[in-house]
Amino acid sequence: MIDSSNGLRVPDIAAIRAAAVRIAPYVHRTPVMQSRSLDALAGAALYFKCENLQKVGAFKARGASNAVFSLSDADAARGVVTHSSGNHGAAIAYAARERGIAAYVVMPENAPTIKIDNVRGFGATIRFCAPTVAAREAGCAEVQREHGATLIHPFDNADVIAGQGTAALELLADVPGLDAIVAPCGGGGLLSGTAIAAKALSPSIRVYGAEPANAGDAAAGFRSGRIEPLPSATTIADGLRTTLAPRTFNAIRAHVDDLRTCSEDAIVRAMRIMWERMKIIVEPSGAVPLACLIERAFDLDPSIKRIGIIISGGNVDLDHLPWQR
Amino acid sequence: MIDSSNGLRVPDIAAIRAAAVRIAPYVHRTPVMQSRSLDALAGAALYFKCENLQKVGAFKARGASNAVFSLSDADAARGVVTHSSGNHGAAIAYAARERGIAAYVVMPENAPTIKIDNVRGFGATIRFCAPTVAAREAGCAEVQREHGATLIHPFDNADVIAGQGTAALELLADVPGLDAIVAPCGGGGLLSGTAIAAKALSPSIRVYGAEPANAGDAAAGFRSGRIEPLPSATTIADGLRTTLAPRTFNAIRAHVDDLRTCSEDAIVRAMRIMWERMKIIVEPSGAVPLACLIERAFDLDPSIKRIGIIISGGNVDLDHLPWQR
Repeated sequence: MIDSSNGLRVPDIAAIRAAAVRIAPYVHRTPVMQSRSLDALAGAALYFKCENLQKVGAFKARGASNAVFSLSDADAARGVVTHSSGNHGAAIAYAARERGIAAYVVMPENAPTIKIDNVRGFGATIRFCAPTVAAREAGCAEVQREHGATLIHPFDNADVIAGQGTAALELLADVPGLDAIVAPCGGGGLLSGTAIAAKALSPSIRVYGAEPANAGDAAAGFRSGRIEPLPSATTIADGLRTTLAPRTFNAIRAHVDDLRTCSEDAIVRAMRIMWERMKIIVEPSGAVPLACLIERAFDLDPSIKRIGIIISGGNVDLDHLPWQR
Repeated sequence: MIDSSNGLRVPDIAAIRAAAVRIAPYVHRTPVMQSRSLDALAGAALYFKCENLQKVGAFKARGASNAVFSLSDADAARGVVTHSSGNHGAAIAYAARERGIAAYVVMPENAPTIKIDNVRGFGATIRFCAPTVAAREAGCAEVQREHGATLIHPFDNADVIAGQGTAALELLADVPGLDAIVAPCGGGGLLSGTAIAAKALSPSIRVYGAEPANAGDAAAGFRSGRIEPLPSATTIADGLRTTLAPRTFNAIRAHVDDLRTCSEDAIVRAMRIMWERMKIIVEPSGAVPLACLIERAFDLDPSIKRIGIIISGGNVDLDHLPWQR
């Protein structure tokens, strides 16, 4: 781990390598898939790192496992807490069960049943709160006070970022000679970890972040030089309705070459193409990198011929598919 | 290849091994996936051979490639023909394109656009005919006469059966110590190839065939000792609405331990569980083995703890999902 100039701890490549060893018993080494028809569509050879096939259906299992298994035995015994009701919440519940410790997940009362059942299925204790950010944070603080549980933030956490970086580590090991790598950007944990790993292993590689235009705060901040507020965030890519933390903002500014955005239409189109051609379930957030490539959002140098893409997750409500609305 | 007593050529393990070498450049070595929650559901460790992630989205790419690349240059130059409008038709079109020869696919005029586009997308020539078996066979005979093209039957063909058997070859190499293997059964090409390969490599392994009760002709024939007619065949598993040929019937009687059937409800349930838990697109036919396990259709000895399952394909109309009817 190194300290950046502002005192916020971020992982270095050694921390990401250590994370890979630590989490190996608890996560899948996910496959890398290719598709000739998608190559033709993108005008480059695409290598998809399938984190939708990861434990709990998302890369979040990596960061959560690394954070949970990095705790001392004494801290672990008091449990962990988080306020994410999405993939990170399920991942914390999963990792805590693997370690045999308590997990508390603070969720708004109006959370969808499917998310509640998912977290509960891993044996976590759910604490309901009013559907506001303040109520969620208060709920977490309460659990920390009552149980001494450790808060594991979904992305503003060096151990989480190190865990997320292990996906790129595997991708670069499995596919030598990548010219670029594209990851979606919500809170920036995956993109930070990806960029730190990729630039350390292959200094000439380009690292790009992909966002929905309807939640394009990171792309805007990358240009303005400060953290920008999240716009309306009406995007279908529900995993990316999050703004950066200073820690991830700094890491992205230091290691990422560019961030660009795509339309909602392109997200749905990319998602459906991946289902049809690759025969895998990809959630909207996971389709955002391909959507950006389809819309030619990045200024890609013609020398960029081999592109790695991280498919972030595959958790979708199968009763409500976006092309059926 | 060996000749069975009735003079019908069927492949032996040497032919299946030769097929694996022959088709390696044209097919994926598909991954084997596991899911803890599906293991719990089935009461055994399940190893899914993902032929839904195969070229053209189905195991059919194996048999078609083996048949097409087994042709002499002189025969190949005159092209190939088939009357399957489903996965085999697409697979023949794909394999012919790979070999650089003509493919003719005879299809009923009322075939769904999605199937027509799929076959056409691989560059095959489509010849439309009236929607009857007689018209299809006449259409094929015409193409054979006009062009000298070789007919490649979807399952009543030793080279096709040998190709289908390569999926089991890979599965047994990747997962040593399987106690049983389950494959779906339509015309019986996949099940024949699977059984011949599995019994040759592991004489004590059990091989089971899985059918929809609504198209349970092979299970009935396995018991009666003769090829039984197909019942109404109203099953959602459209890939299995086919009856056996004498060649596959004999191979199955010689090498398969049992065939059982499942309900339509179980097929839809199994399919949805695989989408949700494994994050992969499985077509109804591909969910039939799991559906039989969920319904406890087989009399499984308690010693059977590790079961291989061949997921036959993943071609689904994403606008019409069975749980949305």
